[in-house]
Amino acid sequence: MSINIIIAGPRGRMGSEAVNMVHNEDSFELVACIDRKHNGMSMNEIDGLPDIDVPFYEDPEECLQQTDADVLIDLTIPEAGFVHTKLALLYDVRPVVGTSGFTPDQIDALRDLSNSHGTGCIIAPNFAVGAVLMMRFAKEAAKYLPDIEIIEKHHDKKLDAPSGTAVKTADLIKDARESKQQGHPDEKETMDGARGADTDGIHIHSVRLPGLVAHQEVLFGGPGQTLTIKHDSYNRESFMAGVKLAVNKVMSMNELVYGLDNILD
Amino acid sequence: MSINIIIAGPRGRMGSEAVNMVHNEDSFELVACIDRKHNGMSMNEIDGLPDIDVPFYEDPEECLQQTDADVLIDLTIPEAGFVHTKLALLYDVRPVVGTSGFTPDQIDALRDLSNSHGTGCIIAPNFAVGAVLMMRFAKEAAKYLPDIEIIEKHHDKKLDAPSGTAVKTADLIKDARESKQQGHPDEKETMDGARGADTDGIHIHSVRLPGLVAHQEVLFGGPGQTLTIKHDSYNRESFMAGVKLAVNKVMSMNELVYGLDNILD
Amino acid sequence: MSINIIIAGPRGRMGSEAVNMVHNEDSFELVACIDRKHNGMSMNEIDGLPDIDVPFYEDPEECLQQTDADVLIDLTIPEAGFVHTKLALLYDVRPVVGTSGFTPDQIDALRDLSNSHGTGCIIAPNFAVGAVLMMRFAKEAAKYLPDIEIIEKHHDKKLDAPSGTAVKTADLIKDARESKQQGHPDEKETMDGARGADTDGIHIHSVRLPGLVAHQEVLFGGPGQTLTIKHDSYNRESFMAGVKLAVNKVMSMNELVYGLDNILD
Amino acid sequence: MSINIIIAGPRGRMGSEAVNMVHNEDSFELVACIDRKHNGMSMNEIDGLPDIDVPFYEDPEECLQQTDADVLIDLTIPEAGFVHTKLALLYDVRPVVGTSGFTPDQIDALRDLSNSHGTGCIIAPNFAVGAVLMMRFAKEAAKYLPDIEIIEKHHDKKLDAPSGTAVKTADLIKDARESKQQGHPDEKETMDGARGADTDGIHIHSVRLPGLVAHQEVLFGGPGQTLTIKHDSYNRESFMAGVKLAVNKVMSMNELVYGLDNILD
Repeated sequence: MSINIIIAGPRGRMGSEAVNMVHNEDSFELVACIDRKHNGMSMNEIDGLPDIDVPFYEDPEECLQQTDADVLIDLTIPEAGFVHTKLALLYDVRPVVGTSGFTPDQIDALRDLSNSHGTGCIIAPNFAVGAVLMMRFAKEAAKYLPDIEIIEKHHDKKLDAPSGTAVKTADLIKDARESKQQGHPDEKETMDGARGADTDGIHIHSVRLPGLVAHQEVLFGGPGQTLTIKHDSYNRESFMAGVKLAVNKVMSMNELVYGLDNILD
Repeated sequence: MSINIIIAGPRGRMGSEAVNMVHNEDSFELVACIDRKHNGMSMNEIDGLPDIDVPFYEDPEECLQQTDADVLIDLTIPEAGFVHTKLALLYDVRPVVGTSGFTPDQIDALRDLSNSHGTGCIIAPNFAVGAVLMMRFAKEAAKYLPDIEIIEKHHDKKLDAPSGTAVKTADLIKDARESKQQGHPDEKETMDGARGADTDGIHIHSVRLPGLVAHQEVLFGGPGQTLTIKHDSYNRESFMAGVKLAVNKVMSMNELVYGLDNILD
Repeated sequence: MSINIIIAGPRGRMGSEAVNMVHNEDSFELVACIDRKHNGMSMNEIDGLPDIDVPFYEDPEECLQQTDADVLIDLTIPEAGFVHTKLALLYDVRPVVGTSGFTPDQIDALRDLSNSHGTGCIIAPNFAVGAVLMMRFAKEAAKYLPDIEIIEKHHDKKLDAPSGTAVKTADLIKDARESKQQGHPDEKETMDGARGADTDGIHIHSVRLPGLVAHQEVLFGGPGQTLTIKHDSYNRESFMAGVKLAVNKVMSMNELVYGLDNILD
Repeated sequence: MSINIIIAGPRGRMGSEAVNMVHNEDSFELVACIDRKHNGMSMNEIDGLPDIDVPFYEDPEECLQQTDADVLIDLTIPEAGFVHTKLALLYDVRPVVGTSGFTPDQIDALRDLSNSHGTGCIIAPNFAVGAVLMMRFAKEAAKYLPDIEIIEKHHDKKLDAPSGTAVKTADLIKDARESKQQGHPDEKETMDGARGADTDGIHIHSVRLPGLVAHQEVLFGGPGQTLTIKHDSYNRESFMAGVKLAVNKVMSMNELVYGLDNILD
């Protein structure tokens, strides 16, 4: 039997990927969309979306009332997402929400609602399974091979260095190993910056080149060996494996879970 | 307080690395060696070993009787190793043994002895922490990104392809994911062997070149992303991080554990 | 002063990339397009193309007559491309043509025309500068480090293995080194195909995974060292650096050159 | 017919590798050694060297007089090396010298001697063929893909960052491309050093980890593609391919050449 799914934000960059993913997955059924426009129309009347008959609603509550849905995938902005998630829980539709924008208070409110209704709910800032696994493995390897450097590589349109993922990876590593100075105690830079950014002894190097997309490798060194964990993200599709996993997981959950890492076994 | 250590096989390729590691570790104290030769001599009389005063014994039992030791590191051959391990357990010295050569019956016998004495014992076929972590992570990632290929690279003196580690990695992955065909169903090789060895859908590629030492990468693909776990082993020192870890762990154990993976948290 | 450019096939996959490239390059001016449709229209009336006023022609000769152009970029199909290229040479407009589909006779005919008019012309089967450099460097390195393996990695929709670029790279290497058997003379595969495809001693390994785009690395081994030349292609934009280079080069040429490699110094 | 070779400094770290290389090469014949010790002895009387009958001389001139040699391989220190090289040229024995320590005046003097005698002579600061090819290819690729970053990785005993090879590579690139700022004009480091060292727009990143030996990759980016040239050096053997090449080349030379790059075609 299929899982019936509502998608909020079907025309957005992430939302349109979700439409394709759900449409192509045999065990999923796209039953409705919540959109700021196109009330009463069908998906096959809208440019750039698959040619299938799926009703569009502007009012999320009307959508939830009139649709027999199991799961809501919300890939909109935090303001709308919070409203959608709350309503879905009230109607016992399980939300799968991609955002890092909810406040702790908002998450607490949704957790209360999810747990009291016994309706599963997954909120995740990052749905790229590979990136989440990279961070998990990095944290684990740091216990045994505590000499670590991070190289992250992005396209040259990126403004900030290091990337958010690199900083988050370093933070996770800091929790897993004791602070330590790396490299030779007397090492010196003959050119400023050669040894990268140093955060608690972990060195981070940010490469920016045209052509690159989003790449990170975490290098661990020990006598006679190195271990490298590398994630390459080529496009937005990379998030869909995580969304798909979350949809399947949320069906058997009866409480709120925050972070994709916490639904990986 | 230091951990007092006996090393069996101090002149062997692995044993001599262990001598250096123990000698250089502040919290370890090398108190005696078991060797087929040099009975009654001191290490500082023997070529190619550190210039320290450590007594050599040819008779393992005599060594264990006359030495106040906490741990025995055995990196000899299986026949001698089994005798040493058994004797060490009888004298309540905790064995750390590097071998894949014990029979199941031998391991059972040692387990009985270890558990009944409450004396910790670690036997491991592979002490390279990085390789063990690579296999562990590969097994875990396979659950979420089940399309997998393995590339292993070794020096061109190696006779067999694929390597034992590649085969073992594939076996662990098979336990973690369902069998699946990879690549396009209609793909075809215009040159035989291009797609590598196929074991249960996992493709293994063996590169052999002068200059290489021992390297393996496990590649996981999903829509829009790839995850790579790579281990590079440059020399025999790579095993010493695992031996060191095992020595520290065995101090607080009171039973036998097989495989380095089982003492990593 | 700008270089005035006509693009043939502006709505095709490659052609639309060329439109963007020419539009964004300060020293280039897009002055007309040759298209099978839209005669008499302007680019700004056509969906999916930049909002600029550039006239469209269905008849290539009319386009060449009425336009003051320096260069024709042709990224259509071989049949149309041959007609366009011939006409352009007659009107002394320098053609830059991306195709591997011309017959030797067609190339000879165009060469005669180009050389007799003294009008530069570049025809190239591959405009990805990085891939062309990879092949050039591979050929050169093979003279000094003759032990070589090729790993090419593509998405899992690809039907044939090895890739055309891998086969071409191996062919170039064969011209540069003597045939040799690689690996240990007594090496054996315990799983068929592990050592990849063997062509004149060079081993080729084809990896196919979802997420990958088009990647190739050529590995050279010698005692104590390895050299690796790697090309990663992420999307069709990768061909535009070569087209741009060809446009600039063709301005000072007065004969036909085949292959991007031959216009790199 | 074999090439008859004298090795100066046969017990040094590089010299002993040269002894092994010459001994194992069918077309080479080791005919004598120049050593500070062991005058009148044979190699088979000296610990740690191959068990072959090769005479040792303390006086280089005596060695050259009494030996029928084609080539002198000198891997000693600059002071001794200069004397040996000069004497060898006087006796029409072709020198192959590994040093970066000769002064310009010394090189000029040797060049005069080499050219007037018509006796080939090769002096090279770096005999690792792979590293020399990496630098050559980097210089060439910079002309077509001018956005470049360098990542060099070494063991954590190394004191200075960046490495000499990285600095030299950047210098070669500067000669081949125009100075340019890389990355986004408004990019900013949220942690100091993240973007590495910046030399004329080229960014250099220095990784230091236990386990690593000596590695460098040069990354070139362009729209939609990246090209990477990577050299891995695992041990001192890596220099022997270059020495071997130089010995073969010097046989047909009649003047002095400085730098391995200049004898690669």
